[in-house]
Amino acid sequence: MKIEHMNIEPGMTTLQLIEEMGKSGVLGAGRIYRATKLLAELISDEETTIFLSIAGPMVPGGLRKIIRDLIDAGHVDVLISSGANLTHDLLESFGGSHYRDHDETDEELCQMGMGRIGDIYTKSEDFEIFEKKISTILEEIAGKRDQLNIREFITEIGNHVDDPESIIHTANKKNVPIYAPGIIDCMLGLQLWMFTQENQLTLDAAGDMHELSDIVFGSKKVAAVILGGGLPKHYALASNLLTGGVDSAIQVTLDRSEAGSLGGAPLEEAKSWAKAKCESRLVSVIGDATIIFPMMVAGALEMVNKEKGV
Amino acid sequence: MKIEHMNIEPGMTTLQLIEEMGKSGVLGAGRIYRATKLLAELISDEETTIFLSIAGPMVPGGLRKIIRDLIDAGHVDVLISSGANLTHDLLESFGGSHYRDHDETDEELCQMGMGRIGDIYTKSEDFEIFEKKISTILEEIAGKRDQLNIREFITEIGNHVDDPESIIHTANKKNVPIYAPGIIDCMLGLQLWMFTQENQLTLDAAGDMHELSDIVFGSKKVAAVILGGGLPKHYALASNLLTGGVDSAIQVTLDRSEAGSLGGAPLEEAKSWAKAKCESRLVSVIGDATIIFPMMVAGALEMVNKEKGV
Amino acid sequence: MKIEHMNIEPGMTTLQLIEEMGKSGVLGAGRIYRATKLLAELISDEETTIFLSIAGPMVPGGLRKIIRDLIDAGHVDVLISSGANLTHDLLESFGGSHYRDHDETDEELCQMGMGRIGDIYTKSEDFEIFEKKISTILEEIAGKRDQLNIREFITEIGNHVDDPESIIHTANKKNVPIYAPGIIDCMLGLQLWMFTQENQLTLDAAGDMHELSDIVFGSKKVAAVILGGGLPKHYALASNLLTGGVDSAIQVTLDRSEAGSLGGAPLEEAKSWAKAKCESRLVSVIGDATIIFPMMVAGALEMVNKEKGV
Amino acid sequence: MKIEHMNIEPGMTTLQLIEEMGKSGVLGAGRIYRATKLLAELISDEETTIFLSIAGPMVPGGLRKIIRDLIDAGHVDVLISSGANLTHDLLESFGGSHYRDHDETDEELCQMGMGRIGDIYTKSEDFEIFEKKISTILEEIAGKRDQLNIREFITEIGNHVDDPESIIHTANKKNVPIYAPGIIDCMLGLQLWMFTQENQLTLDAAGDMHELSDIVFGSKKVAAVILGGGLPKHYALASNLLTGGVDSAIQVTLDRSEAGSLGGAPLEEAKSWAKAKCESRLVSVIGDATIIFPMMVAGALEMVNKEKGV
Repeated sequence: MKIEHMNIEPGMTTLQLIEEMGKSGVLGAGRIYRATKLLAELISDEETTIFLSIAGPMVPGGLRKIIRDLIDAGHVDVLISSGANLTHDLLESFGGSHYRDHDETDEELCQMGMGRIGDIYTKSEDFEIFEKKISTILEEIAGKRDQLNIREFITEIGNHVDDPESIIHTANKKNVPIYAPGIIDCMLGLQLWMFTQENQLTLDAAGDMHELSDIVFGSKKVAAVILGGGLPKHYALASNLLTGGVDSAIQVTLDRSEAGSLGGAPLEEAKSWAKAKCESRLVSVIGDATIIFPMMVAGALEMVNKEKGV
Repeated sequence: MKIEHMNIEPGMTTLQLIEEMGKSGVLGAGRIYRATKLLAELISDEETTIFLSIAGPMVPGGLRKIIRDLIDAGHVDVLISSGANLTHDLLESFGGSHYRDHDETDEELCQMGMGRIGDIYTKSEDFEIFEKKISTILEEIAGKRDQLNIREFITEIGNHVDDPESIIHTANKKNVPIYAPGIIDCMLGLQLWMFTQENQLTLDAAGDMHELSDIVFGSKKVAAVILGGGLPKHYALASNLLTGGVDSAIQVTLDRSEAGSLGGAPLEEAKSWAKAKCESRLVSVIGDATIIFPMMVAGALEMVNKEKGV
Repeated sequence: MKIEHMNIEPGMTTLQLIEEMGKSGVLGAGRIYRATKLLAELISDEETTIFLSIAGPMVPGGLRKIIRDLIDAGHVDVLISSGANLTHDLLESFGGSHYRDHDETDEELCQMGMGRIGDIYTKSEDFEIFEKKISTILEEIAGKRDQLNIREFITEIGNHVDDPESIIHTANKKNVPIYAPGIIDCMLGLQLWMFTQENQLTLDAAGDMHELSDIVFGSKKVAAVILGGGLPKHYALASNLLTGGVDSAIQVTLDRSEAGSLGGAPLEEAKSWAKAKCESRLVSVIGDATIIFPMMVAGALEMVNKEKGV
Repeated sequence: MKIEHMNIEPGMTTLQLIEEMGKSGVLGAGRIYRATKLLAELISDEETTIFLSIAGPMVPGGLRKIIRDLIDAGHVDVLISSGANLTHDLLESFGGSHYRDHDETDEELCQMGMGRIGDIYTKSEDFEIFEKKISTILEEIAGKRDQLNIREFITEIGNHVDDPESIIHTANKKNVPIYAPGIIDCMLGLQLWMFTQENQLTLDAAGDMHELSDIVFGSKKVAAVILGGGLPKHYALASNLLTGGVDSAIQVTLDRSEAGSLGGAPLEEAKSWAKAKCESRLVSVIGDATIIFPMMVAGALEMVNKEKGV
């Protein structure tokens, strides 16, 4: 098949741009076209359960509303998150923010009470408010139960967050479960630990597997949309092991594969482990998720509307 | 400054998408917004001479028309190219194509007469036509002159290419000089060498510098837009050394900086060498040029139109 | 300071090679020299508690014995591991192996019952033995206790593993605690979950923090040696938050920093969060841990011996 | 085949270390072992002509002596270099140096007259001496001839450099030709251009191909050892096109392949173009050449001696 050259017109929609990339069909251009097309099909397919996994600074990096809106629109059925993205979602719901355009050194930032994630900055005063609010919530949770699964714990927190912009709140509203197997490793985890110094509240690390397994077995098809690597990526794929693997997957990453790290592992590798079915459709896009994912979502939603004749 | 969250609407234009990324302003999202904004300003600024450098499979990868259209619209003043991109431009003008969607091994491809660049494929029969056509052109050039600078050589070839889709043809039409310091290292170079086995035709390797220097000294401001690394990247920057460096630069690359390679070098490094002015505006976008560049061009052209009230 | 050129002599020891790299002192050569020197100092310093974090296929990739030997020699005080590395350690203790030199497709591997991690292969028959052995161990653990912290769980497992080559066994022998905050996300976690379908055994996700905190507060100085990213990297640094951060750290990674992922984050970023002290010594080596870490360990041990006059 | 675990002993030689990596045989460990073994075989094989290509700051980064010694020992038959590495070789022969351990900003460096390549620094006063010396040499060359091929030009320069540490000098002494197709794009090229403003001296860009072709046709077997990408990498492979490609190749790079750049292209791709024979032995090592190459050379030389019983 011949490669056609892309044509750019000012004012073209995101989907029109991506369709031009599809005319080329090679290198990154081909990857993002195929990923967008697959995402649109997954969204339109009533039979597919969509797992979204997020690692890396997706909430601090500006993707909070996109993820929240996808959940609100019913386009995400299961969210698997790093603990940090949940912490940062709550931080904003409690009145905090994320900041940019600082040029201090890391030593200076430390003295100013600012934490850095790439070119994203946080303020310790925001975390202080977070701590106060979350400790009240933990007390209320502990007043009701002394042991929970991690998913239940997140749901309980969400019940105390009355912020329509919140991912956790919106997930609760839409009955989208949030799993965070590494939840302990973030500020939320730290607060939980401090709370348990004087209170009884146990998170059962393995407790979510039964529920997650039920979701997988109850799905006709499962798709994984994977932003970044880490525990969320692996959990999204591995939870489908017992049914022979996901039916399709999209991943967006800048990690590379040669040293064998999970983050950079090609999705095809998941086939060997039965974490992706042999006939599954798999697309990896190499790039920064804060560019690639909004583009792909805009393109896919436009494609879905177009199909529907909206 | 607070990071705002991006909002995605189906049907949004490319610029609207990029402006949402600008609201975040961090990580890749911030980079592509700043690069797009800078590109729009450069295009609108009559006083800036724009150098575009291209290395890597930009023409085979589907960017031929975008580059040609930028030249045709007067948005590129100087093109600095790898030899290969010129070869592939000519290959298409001579009737050849680039191909995709093959899954043979490299050994099988070799036996089929197909060359591979990532997931792009070429056919040796297209190269055979290329050889015939180019040798006729070389004869005609040698009939007129026995020594040329590389830029003159490319111009002479362009005079024999009557294809409005061709980058070389369009550059000739618009008086945009094309420099290719490494021209020998491609199929065009190979054909030139074969021709010189029995004919007299010398390319003066250093001959272009005088002309290029005149362009730089004759420009109020110079901007470099750099796709990929290699000789074209360095040449685009180094040719501005004698005037203290470029006034602005944008680069798109997936290479990394730690091992000191030029391709991955941060643009800031060019300041130390007076290849970029100390007050220059410099934006690097980490990503695949076949995604990033079309997006940036679509956004910048839309921004320019918006400014003009078109 | 002038850069000197490296001199290579056949038969030179690893330390001699690394010292030549130190003469250069720049790019990767400088990084590995500084990392080796720092590691040697940390090993020699009685006052420093060394945290080793391992993510990515370190055990399958051939580093099991190096890690075990470092623990056995008293050079590692705390191990923070991905669940997978513990699973693979047990897999070998139970008689299984890791394999190489396969060239089947992922689909073929799946049908052969082989899982792939880069160019490393596993056999499902080895995992079947793993499952039998681990379920017996889980029964014995559940016979004694119905709730454990993750560290205690790993220690209990180690008590049933009588293999001097095992990391877990050796860590038990030397009283080196192993933390694995993401333990659920591996074959060991899967077996635990299956076991808990019909048995009572709860892992308390937050339970280790108290103990880990005691170690940090009880240490005069803490150093983190970080192979790969993920939860283990963050946990190693974040557990030092309450005392103002680690005193020194070395990381080996191929991940890059621009997209904000933790794996690629520069160690300097940890200073802003008080996860590394402002005056801490931090060295990142960009490369594949299966090359860099053995080289660094060989060089550091030789340096320690040289200092001691051994 | 089972993966064995590496064993580290303090005082082990570089080859012993690499052989431990060979026991693992996977990921980077396997790659460097196979590359070292192949390099040793190439060095021992009288019938193989070895092309060494160098791009990126190999001379400034501390590899000058290693490259010079390989040439002096007869282990390199053809050198293909970026112009910059030749400039930096001459800079040192003319009394200049490369520097490290600066922490100024790029703006400050520019004002101090220092250029930066990663964490390598140069001084403009060294370049001023370079300019004086090279202009004298250019005069002498132009006194004898008014047109040269690039290789002849480098040889002529080498005849004026009486420095046993110099790569160019040593290559002359050993009749090892140096090709530098992009020679114009460096300080040496800039000086040549300035000289030709008032003098007649033409470098024939395509002139070397005949000679290079004779070398390739005159070789029973050809091997390419490739450090970094760029023009030198491609030239080393493409010059073997007419004989069906190299018989073996080793590359060391940190570039990645997905965006189609030559630097990151897998060596296997060269098979499709008949730049590497279908049955050729090809090894890529992902890493920083200032770590990987000295290690590989030390290991290979020790292996050669061991084979010889030295």
